[in-house]
Amino acid sequence: MKNTPKNSSWREQLHEVIYEADTPAGKTFDVVLLILILLSIVFVMLESVKGLDAWVYNFLYYAEWIITVLFSIEYIARIISIEKPKKYIFSFYGLIDFFSTIPLYVSLLFPGGGSALITVRALRLLRVFRILKVSRYIGEGDKLMKALRESKAKILVFLFAVIILCLIFGTAMYMIEGEESGFTNIPVSLYWCIVTLTTVGFGDIHPVTPLGQFLASLIMILGYGVIAVPTGIVSAEYSKKDKSADNNLRTNTQSCYHCNESKHLDGADFCHNCGYPLNREK
Amino acid sequence: MKNTPKNSSWREQLHEVIYEADTPAGKTFDVVLLILILLSIVFVMLESVKGLDAWVYNFLYYAEWIITVLFSIEYIARIISIEKPKKYIFSFYGLIDFFSTIPLYVSLLFPGGGSALITVRALRLLRVFRILKVSRYIGEGDKLMKALRESKAKILVFLFAVIILCLIFGTAMYMIEGEESGFTNIPVSLYWCIVTLTTVGFGDIHPVTPLGQFLASLIMILGYGVIAVPTGIVSAEYSKKDKSADNNLRTNTQSCYHCNESKHLDGADFCHNCGYPLNREK
Amino acid sequence: MKNTPKNSSWREQLHEVIYEADTPAGKTFDVVLLILILLSIVFVMLESVKGLDAWVYNFLYYAEWIITVLFSIEYIARIISIEKPKKYIFSFYGLIDFFSTIPLYVSLLFPGGGSALITVRALRLLRVFRILKVSRYIGEGDKLMKALRESKAKILVFLFAVIILCLIFGTAMYMIEGEESGFTNIPVSLYWCIVTLTTVGFGDIHPVTPLGQFLASLIMILGYGVIAVPTGIVSAEYSKKDKSADNNLRTNTQSCYHCNESKHLDGADFCHNCGYPLNREK
Amino acid sequence: MKNTPKNSSWREQLHEVIYEADTPAGKTFDVVLLILILLSIVFVMLESVKGLDAWVYNFLYYAEWIITVLFSIEYIARIISIEKPKKYIFSFYGLIDFFSTIPLYVSLLFPGGGSALITVRALRLLRVFRILKVSRYIGEGDKLMKALRESKAKILVFLFAVIILCLIFGTAMYMIEGEESGFTNIPVSLYWCIVTLTTVGFGDIHPVTPLGQFLASLIMILGYGVIAVPTGIVSAEYSKKDKSADNNLRTNTQSCYHCNESKHLDGADFCHNCGYPLNREK
Repeated sequence: MKNTPKNSSWREQLHEVIYEADTPAGKTFDVVLLILILLSIVFVMLESVKGLDAWVYNFLYYAEWIITVLFSIEYIARIISIEKPKKYIFSFYGLIDFFSTIPLYVSLLFPGGGSALITVRALRLLRVFRILKVSRYIGEGDKLMKALRESKAKILVFLFAVIILCLIFGTAMYMIEGEESGFTNIPVSLYWCIVTLTTVGFGDIHPVTPLGQFLASLIMILGYGVIAVPTGIVSAEYSKKDKSADNNLRTNTQSCYHCNESKHLDGADFCHNCGYPLNREK
Repeated sequence: MKNTPKNSSWREQLHEVIYEADTPAGKTFDVVLLILILLSIVFVMLESVKGLDAWVYNFLYYAEWIITVLFSIEYIARIISIEKPKKYIFSFYGLIDFFSTIPLYVSLLFPGGGSALITVRALRLLRVFRILKVSRYIGEGDKLMKALRESKAKILVFLFAVIILCLIFGTAMYMIEGEESGFTNIPVSLYWCIVTLTTVGFGDIHPVTPLGQFLASLIMILGYGVIAVPTGIVSAEYSKKDKSADNNLRTNTQSCYHCNESKHLDGADFCHNCGYPLNREK
Repeated sequence: MKNTPKNSSWREQLHEVIYEADTPAGKTFDVVLLILILLSIVFVMLESVKGLDAWVYNFLYYAEWIITVLFSIEYIARIISIEKPKKYIFSFYGLIDFFSTIPLYVSLLFPGGGSALITVRALRLLRVFRILKVSRYIGEGDKLMKALRESKAKILVFLFAVIILCLIFGTAMYMIEGEESGFTNIPVSLYWCIVTLTTVGFGDIHPVTPLGQFLASLIMILGYGVIAVPTGIVSAEYSKKDKSADNNLRTNTQSCYHCNESKHLDGADFCHNCGYPLNREK
Repeated sequence: MKNTPKNSSWREQLHEVIYEADTPAGKTFDVVLLILILLSIVFVMLESVKGLDAWVYNFLYYAEWIITVLFSIEYIARIISIEKPKKYIFSFYGLIDFFSTIPLYVSLLFPGGGSALITVRALRLLRVFRILKVSRYIGEGDKLMKALRESKAKILVFLFAVIILCLIFGTAMYMIEGEESGFTNIPVSLYWCIVTLTTVGFGDIHPVTPLGQFLASLIMILGYGVIAVPTGIVSAEYSKKDKSADNNLRTNTQSCYHCNESKHLDGADFCHNCGYPLNREK
């Protein structure tokens, strides 16, 4: 996207401020960004509320533009300050940053009228994804993600079992209750079955025949047992994690200027990914 | 059902493709079958939706016939390719395969009119059981089933306790609330009690008298404690499983041509069930 | 209640049949009793259903009398066959046996009309307690009860915390939402809070103001954490139980003829409670 | 607030009665206080119920005044009997004691009429906080609080993940369902999402479009997995606690007259916080 010359000191410093949180400047940058993201989410939410005074919508319109511009500057700064911009642009957070900045610009290109405007609005709501950036700053988030990744196989088998149960019981309930009770077709019946098995129970659809109520009782008691399975899986995974936490090596927020690899050990002098030197200024 | 000559090489090869998933051909067969099963379920679900265009129902009718014919061929191939067909026919999956293929043929024999058609429709919905085949292909499913089998005694006692609680509280609520609140008889009151104790809470029936609301509060807080019991049981069972997983021997999808016993150890040369040689071609 | 002569052989034999389940006769007696109890519960439930044919209610009336007479005989037999009847009469099961047999006789003494009849009906419903007898026959039930008894202190503190939370949030919701939303007074608001915190969520009462919905969201997320506490308690208790199960001594259903103490060790020759000899005939 | 002379024997004795529970007098004081707090809560709850006889409201008015006066005396006694009153006044329980006593006096100063009265009523309801005192008397309460404090970091990350999930899904549901289904704006949609993810499911708002029901199903199944996380955290924390309970040192309810530090070890002769002698009379 841009031609990036090697070893320009100001860009390495910018890189440290934007991508790392070990220096005072880097910490301030992250906190300000966090507040901006939260503000932007509150503004998007307020905008959807009807019946407020006109000046509120006006204020929100301008606030939105200011935040969008600030995010655009941040996005460009992120691209400039890294040696291999592609590493950032096509990373998970790079894509989120892009799609959370773009909606307002798109609404300028396609102003349209009527139904088109609603589509644009939908695009603007995508900025809510901006909040996903936040999780980057809290270290424990990775731990949770790792635990989920490791028990992926078990969770998939469990979900598979739940879906089979819902298919069988959903079809049975459709046959027993029929359209008068709100079980208008199998997909709706399947939706009801998931609502029941997960113990949510909205009550928008519910059995009325004795046989339907009997089967529903069975499904609920089954849901009791089923809810125990993911709990057991996560409990086992978490207690395993706790044991390994004893010989837990500490990492810092250093991020390699060359390849953008983060999570280096405390005291590491070279990037463990590309061998580029870290910690220029101690 | 059919006379099965001994040691015909093409049938052993067919057996390997259909019953095993270690060879490329066997893997392809299983994946195609899986997709067909999923498609057939989607079609049955779509058929129950009202208000679609006429051509959709037409398409679904023909799609159903094609899938039914394919499943029939698979069913016959399974019978031919095994030495003792009875082992397959009266196995769990054999019966599911049979009952998920038959409905459409039955609807031809008994075309009837009016109410009879609805009965036929119900039979066609049984094809949803076809999905149960799928679990055969995912290895971890057995582990879940085993864990459930081993804690069967505990689960039964727990279910028994839940049913006693529901009987006592259901009767009490029927006496307190009466018919005006929707607690029309003890079975309905029992249904409400299960809905509440499992924390589903549809809200179709709910207490309105102060005493009823007080008792309902007690039931809900009790349900809190009760939901902890199956979780504790499954957690204990799962952490036991994890320990034994250390000295876990690896099995493959080899299936004996003679007795259809599956789950042989890697490197096994003879069936551990009947002594028939395995692994003809390595 | 009755004068009980010492050492009459037929009474000791009757004692073995009624109170123990090690001999074929004792086992048969328990199974027949179990079936009678289940039948009686089904009959009480059916009786509360309206709109059935007249002969059903007739049948239920006579069935009820037959079962009541059989239970009366059993109750008297239990008193006769034990040396110290008071031990049985004032035991937990003795009282349940008494109160589950008496309602029909009471309805004869006070036939009355109008409202009195309803009271009698309520007394008849007490027979549902008869089912509590059943748990006596399943050995694992004691284990569950023991686990609950041991974690009693923790559970009480937990329940106390839940009640404080509900009082604070219930009052707050009453002040925020007021009567228009269904939060008519603090007790009702407290009931709603328990419904929400236990994740039952009937929906008969629900917040409508933005502030109420915000507070309700907080309560629900809190309920998330709160539901984890009893699960943790029971899980810990159950995994402790599993360890002690290794050196688990086996007991049988022998019951002392002298003091009615049950749960003697396999091979015990004398009652561990009163020293009276057990196992007269091996 | 008051000038407190040093070492007056009657004040040290009063301190022991009010702040400690090891002597018979101290125990009686705490039990009486506990009963008064519970009575006061019941009275506040009853007062909010409409449609009772006039004498009930009269009785409640006088009962409220009597309890308020008694609590005022207790509050002053607590201040007098301690050497450094500020330690108590600005402690957690000191503030609760103050704010649970004050409302009725405030209602005298600002009698007002109409809307002002409602505000006063709200202040009176604050007395419900009085119940928080109770937890002080039950020793296990601290254990629960400690467990929660230690897993604070994990719980915060978890809550953060839940809020992100709710923001994304809430916005998506608002876009899919729109105002006709009750998803009037993003905050309401967010509220619905929390109701669903926590498996409460009031049913006041629920999806009606097929796509909305499909997304809701996904949210519910996700909620299944999410509910397992706090359970796993608390389970791990509780089983850790159980291990450390082996070398658990016993503390008593001794409270230092000088600095009000409580929880001294059995046998301690001097306050571990300020060195002031404890246990004057053994």
